[in-house]
Amino acid sequence: MTDTSASDLTLEEKASLTSGADFWTTKAIERVGLPSIMMTDGPHGLRKQAGGTDHLGLSSSVPATCFPPAVGIGSSFDPEIVERVGAAIGVEAAIEDVAIVLGPGINIKRSPLCGRNFEYFSEDPIVSGILGAASVRGVQSQGVGTSLKHFAANNQEFDRMRASSDVDPRPLHEIYLRGFERVVKDAEPWTVMCSYNRINGVYASEDPWLLTQVLRDDWGFDGVVVSDWGAVNDRVAGVAAGLDLEMPSSGGRTDAQLVAAVRAGELDESVLDTAADRAIDLVRKAQRRPAVAGPLDVDAHHALAREAAGRSIVLLKNDGDVLPLAAERRIAVIGAFATEPRFQGAGSSLINPTRVDTAWDELRAVGGENVTYAAGFAVEGGDIAASGRSADDLRAEAVAVASAADVAVVFLGLPAAEESEGFDREHIDLPAAQLEVLDAVIAANPTTVVVLSNGGVVALPFAERVPAIVETWLLGQAGGGAVADVLYGAVNPSGKLTETVPVRLEDNPSFGNFPGEFGHVRYGEGVLVGYRWYDAKGLDVTFPFGYGLSYTTFSYGEASVAASESGDIVVRVDVTNTGDRDGREIVQVYAAPVASVVQRAPRELKAFASVALAAGETRTVELVVRREDLAYWDVRVDRWIVESGEYTVEVAASSRDIRSSATVQVEGDAVSLPLTMNSSIGDVLAHPVAGPTVMGALGGFLGELTGADSSAASMMPNDEAMQKMMASFPIGRLIGFPGVDVTHEQVEQLLEGANAGVLTPA
Amino acid sequence: MTDTSASDLTLEEKASLTSGADFWTTKAIERVGLPSIMMTDGPHGLRKQAGGTDHLGLSSSVPATCFPPAVGIGSSFDPEIVERVGAAIGVEAAIEDVAIVLGPGINIKRSPLCGRNFEYFSEDPIVSGILGAASVRGVQSQGVGTSLKHFAANNQEFDRMRASSDVDPRPLHEIYLRGFERVVKDAEPWTVMCSYNRINGVYASEDPWLLTQVLRDDWGFDGVVVSDWGAVNDRVAGVAAGLDLEMPSSGGRTDAQLVAAVRAGELDESVLDTAADRAIDLVRKAQRRPAVAGPLDVDAHHALAREAAGRSIVLLKNDGDVLPLAAERRIAVIGAFATEPRFQGAGSSLINPTRVDTAWDELRAVGGENVTYAAGFAVEGGDIAASGRSADDLRAEAVAVASAADVAVVFLGLPAAEESEGFDREHIDLPAAQLEVLDAVIAANPTTVVVLSNGGVVALPFAERVPAIVETWLLGQAGGGAVADVLYGAVNPSGKLTETVPVRLEDNPSFGNFPGEFGHVRYGEGVLVGYRWYDAKGLDVTFPFGYGLSYTTFSYGEASVAASESGDIVVRVDVTNTGDRDGREIVQVYAAPVASVVQRAPRELKAFASVALAAGETRTVELVVRREDLAYWDVRVDRWIVESGEYTVEVAASSRDIRSSATVQVEGDAVSLPLTMNSSIGDVLAHPVAGPTVMGALGGFLGELTGADSSAASMMPNDEAMQKMMASFPIGRLIGFPGVDVTHEQVEQLLEGANAGVLTPA
Repeated sequence: MTDTSASDLTLEEKASLTSGADFWTTKAIERVGLPSIMMTDGPHGLRKQAGGTDHLGLSSSVPATCFPPAVGIGSSFDPEIVERVGAAIGVEAAIEDVAIVLGPGINIKRSPLCGRNFEYFSEDPIVSGILGAASVRGVQSQGVGTSLKHFAANNQEFDRMRASSDVDPRPLHEIYLRGFERVVKDAEPWTVMCSYNRINGVYASEDPWLLTQVLRDDWGFDGVVVSDWGAVNDRVAGVAAGLDLEMPSSGGRTDAQLVAAVRAGELDESVLDTAADRAIDLVRKAQRRPAVAGPLDVDAHHALAREAAGRSIVLLKNDGDVLPLAAERRIAVIGAFATEPRFQGAGSSLINPTRVDTAWDELRAVGGENVTYAAGFAVEGGDIAASGRSADDLRAEAVAVASAADVAVVFLGLPAAEESEGFDREHIDLPAAQLEVLDAVIAANPTTVVVLSNGGVVALPFAERVPAIVETWLLGQAGGGAVADVLYGAVNPSGKLTETVPVRLEDNPSFGNFPGEFGHVRYGEGVLVGYRWYDAKGLDVTFPFGYGLSYTTFSYGEASVAASESGDIVVRVDVTNTGDRDGREIVQVYAAPVASVVQRAPRELKAFASVALAAGETRTVELVVRREDLAYWDVRVDRWIVESGEYTVEVAASSRDIRSSATVQVEGDAVSLPLTMNSSIGDVLAHPVAGPTVMGALGGFLGELTGADSSAASMMPNDEAMQKMMASFPIGRLIGFPGVDVTHEQVEQLLEGANAGVLTPA
Repeated sequence: MTDTSASDLTLEEKASLTSGADFWTTKAIERVGLPSIMMTDGPHGLRKQAGGTDHLGLSSSVPATCFPPAVGIGSSFDPEIVERVGAAIGVEAAIEDVAIVLGPGINIKRSPLCGRNFEYFSEDPIVSGILGAASVRGVQSQGVGTSLKHFAANNQEFDRMRASSDVDPRPLHEIYLRGFERVVKDAEPWTVMCSYNRINGVYASEDPWLLTQVLRDDWGFDGVVVSDWGAVNDRVAGVAAGLDLEMPSSGGRTDAQLVAAVRAGELDESVLDTAADRAIDLVRKAQRRPAVAGPLDVDAHHALAREAAGRSIVLLKNDGDVLPLAAERRIAVIGAFATEPRFQGAGSSLINPTRVDTAWDELRAVGGENVTYAAGFAVEGGDIAASGRSADDLRAEAVAVASAADVAVVFLGLPAAEESEGFDREHIDLPAAQLEVLDAVIAANPTTVVVLSNGGVVALPFAERVPAIVETWLLGQAGGGAVADVLYGAVNPSGKLTETVPVRLEDNPSFGNFPGEFGHVRYGEGVLVGYRWYDAKGLDVTFPFGYGLSYTTFSYGEASVAASESGDIVVRVDVTNTGDRDGREIVQVYAAPVASVVQRAPRELKAFASVALAAGETRTVELVVRREDLAYWDVRVDRWIVESGEYTVEVAASSRDIRSSATVQVEGDAVSLPLTMNSSIGDVLAHPVAGPTVMGALGGFLGELTGADSSAASMMPNDEAMQKMMASFPIGRLIGFPGVDVTHEQVEQLLEGANAGVLTPA
């Protein structure tokens, strides 16, 4: 174990220690016995570069288990399964001598178009934060580090290395930073990866507000901030802002800049010392990892991947209980994704899987000869595409097998080339060729089940025309088996939506602003992201946030809601599995103040639980709403404020399926705001100390406005209107007005007197 | 005529000259023979304070003709009638020895909730600009000045004296400043009134960018900037920024601050000289006004007010040609607004009218005993309200008269107390009591015509349930006659909507951001204001922008569209009155580039004409789209840029009734952007000079990415995807990357070489 510290190193050594040796490793300093450590991409499996670390970072990797990406496993709403998967990834990393897995990614899905949405959990920061923390705990339980990314407000791929996410303080804190705050505080990731983009004009990699004030001072982070690969714009500014480690190597160029900056007095050497000490501490943590003997238990991890995939599937529709399928039914499997599955997205998270199951093989394994197949359409780069068969021919074959079957199961999805790190989608439609085949199949056999493979949300124009829809997202390498499990009922689906399925892209809150232009993207929707927007606007959606069906049914009792001593709100509710099949229900708690001084969404998710219930079983589920999650970010005092007053607390099966509602009184935070010359007359009059005095001083003036001259010819319709208008006047502006007999000094004295007692507004 | 200049004045005199003597007048300086001049509120008539100018500015005024407020007359889409009304107001001002009428107000109607929308023309800057210029021309034709207001981005009343309108550069220029630019350049108002609010954090009254760079340097304004009454936050900063005249008087307090600032060297005396010279120049202009002998020709101006009101009315629906009414039909007039009309909004624009017509009297004058009346409901402060009759009683009476008539004409509207300067509305609904009466009337007599009086848009939930709707907005003192003219057909209605009537408030683009909180309101919808939003989002509306019916019908020929030498686009179209009644048609031209580098609305209004056509007449209408109106504001170069390429030009009867469409090639503006280290690889490769060289230098690296290793295990789905991802990398970030064999100096040299020839991107 190294006991080196920055004080043992030369200036050059310290500088060198805060950037990579190559694409994937830190620099060793043999003189002091400091070893190099390796990082590899994650987060749903290991992407360890094959063939050495000194080469391009973008090509093939050693085989690893491909677990469901975040878009899939997020639907479990279950930190337990996420943590177990994290632990398995930690084991694989340990076997490969990887010190840090680069993940989880917890950015908010602001627009369904973001090419990297498949790597993220949700449009909601509580979901992202809770599941992100679980992932960190899992990986780090094995002595392997994580890198919480991409910090922050990196919600698109378009122009991601330059574009400024222009976000107001409230959405920035309440939506885009909230999940990061939770993971940092709850799970202490070893590293945080700063993102490529700028935030309100400042590169994340050189933003002292972000990397030091928020992350370290406010949240208490004491790990390493590592740059996303190539995110460093100005290395000296970066280190000064709180960036500890540049990745990958800059070939020594930026190390020399650091040295020069210290020599020139432009960078305090102690700042570099701190970064170097953090880098050393990171190595020290890595050295503590217990040795793990290989080889990898491929089968056990594949089984876990299958379990996780089963938990990731969301049953969107199941009219007439079409699903699950009986093994003896004649099933027509249609769609090339059944044999050429899409199970992960592209880019830095792409895993070279240890094996890949297909739905076709797995369905056949259960249903045998009762299961037939037609490709229906070609998938780019796949065998069907290579076969050169015509679209008409493929469609005709699909219609034929569908006609001959009891049930058609059509596998639709997004082509791999449409979803990737590095660029965004331009629409949310499935390929027209696939939809045409689906239409033909529905015409041939109305008992059609649609199974979707897609990393980002797609529009579902056929939702009314098929009896069953299974959203599988991207399921990792064992997804084929998980799909068979769900279709045949070996697994009762329990996933719910962590993002809204909108009717149209145009309904999305970022539409019109996404992805921005000329280096700026305005987050114009403010805090109304995802379901917050759809609810506030009262918009129809195809399927709402938090929604998902089961093969059984659940009833909810009346919730009891009570504030605890800590200020947290404890919610208890009886949930009963009212069907004849074991299952899981994701119970959700939403809350919102009855009245607020700021724009709020009608409801915000505050807690959730995935509850396993045997057929007929009732359990009392307890969920805790953290007091801090009730807070809004107050721009007047630049901190979180919990408002006092009544809050509506809803227990729900989805954001639009509220099962029980109660109100609870919350003791809020005080906000001390002194009266100033810029305080409105309304504010001053409302002040317990200043109010009566000001009324005395300005009474003549105000009285004249609202009393004597309220004839029909007066400019205001009535006294109340006049008062409303005058209430918004800053008191300082009235001084010297004709008719106002009070001096600047008198008002100042008055305000000082009032401020001696502290004002506590709502 | 004064020939004084600032150089003749003492420092104290100069300071005193740049603030008011009282509420309404400037200071005279008798020593040099400089007289005082008077300003009064406008803009749809004169609000000259009764009983002297040294008293509160908020009470009753001398009688003047109340012309239709902007919300009404704007619907004429006709600068000719607006200019004539302006000239009449100028005459009234001259008779009253008023030098400057404070108006027109041309702020954009961003939200229907803004309490002052009735004072503004439109949600569109071209409409606001053209009609605003007409108003200025009209008033100033009489030697009376105007004050173009409220400059700028003052689009709500809530917290108007402190709130910052946080607007990005494109919407600020393209939507909120564009109309002001047009009026300043086309009509040269004597003064511009800066608004109360802040813009992106800076008070309009002390914003050098707004008051000097934009207004004077860019637009060439050479008049006086006057503060809105009480808008001065910091007088010294204001004068330094380009504010010439503080109103009203500050009692000498801020004059003393100016003097002290000059003495302390904090304000250059020459800046004060400039302001004082502008104030003197304003007096000089006022002195040139020819004497106008009173008394006012009340009848002539009332007749003009009636003509203008007739042009303001928008016929929204007329199924089965219910309208116009034959004089012999039995008409039940229902609704207190028929006898107690709402004809103007409240606040500084409130006129003490010379007389007021009621619809009831005027309808009765035509229809005699065939016209009956029931109040139906009470209007706050009116005679019915004073009578104390119950709602049930009033409704029963309404049902009785409706049942006995051939046609029910129900006058609905917003109460005066809901629409005023000084506060905003909280919803867009008509009072429930009125809607209940309407329902009862419809049940009694389905042949029901609704006549609306409202300064701001209201939701029309009954639109499908009545055969005819007449939107009269606020019509001024002669509105009663104008309504009778339209209902009986003496006037054929020709107004069209200058703002969208949405289905729901929630559909409005500012919903969720309006009116902001804690001193900030985010203009999150960007350029997509009004119909631009509804069209971009594909939202249903109740009635679209530019819509309005006539008692006759119009057909459009195929438009011819051609670019002229100046770059303006000349549109010619034959329009035919295909009915048997004379009428007017408002012909509209919309345009948009076929493809754009920035987010654009699907269509933007660029030109319009109000065309009088006798029954059966065809005329060729020529409309000119100014080249400059095709431009977007380019944040890269901070100026207007017209894009080269094809534009779609649409000739339309409304924004959703396109009659003819053509494309035209436009020669755009060149944008010179040097390549930098921050240029993306995509940009560099696309460069005619740099591209091939860079490909040579980076070819090995890029080739390796896209060629050799594109196996299934590569991280990107295909070469195209890899290229898309890499194209967004800033070239400077790659230097030093493992595998990239090019130095910083080499790249810099390369870019310099490329920049020697100037790059002109699309």
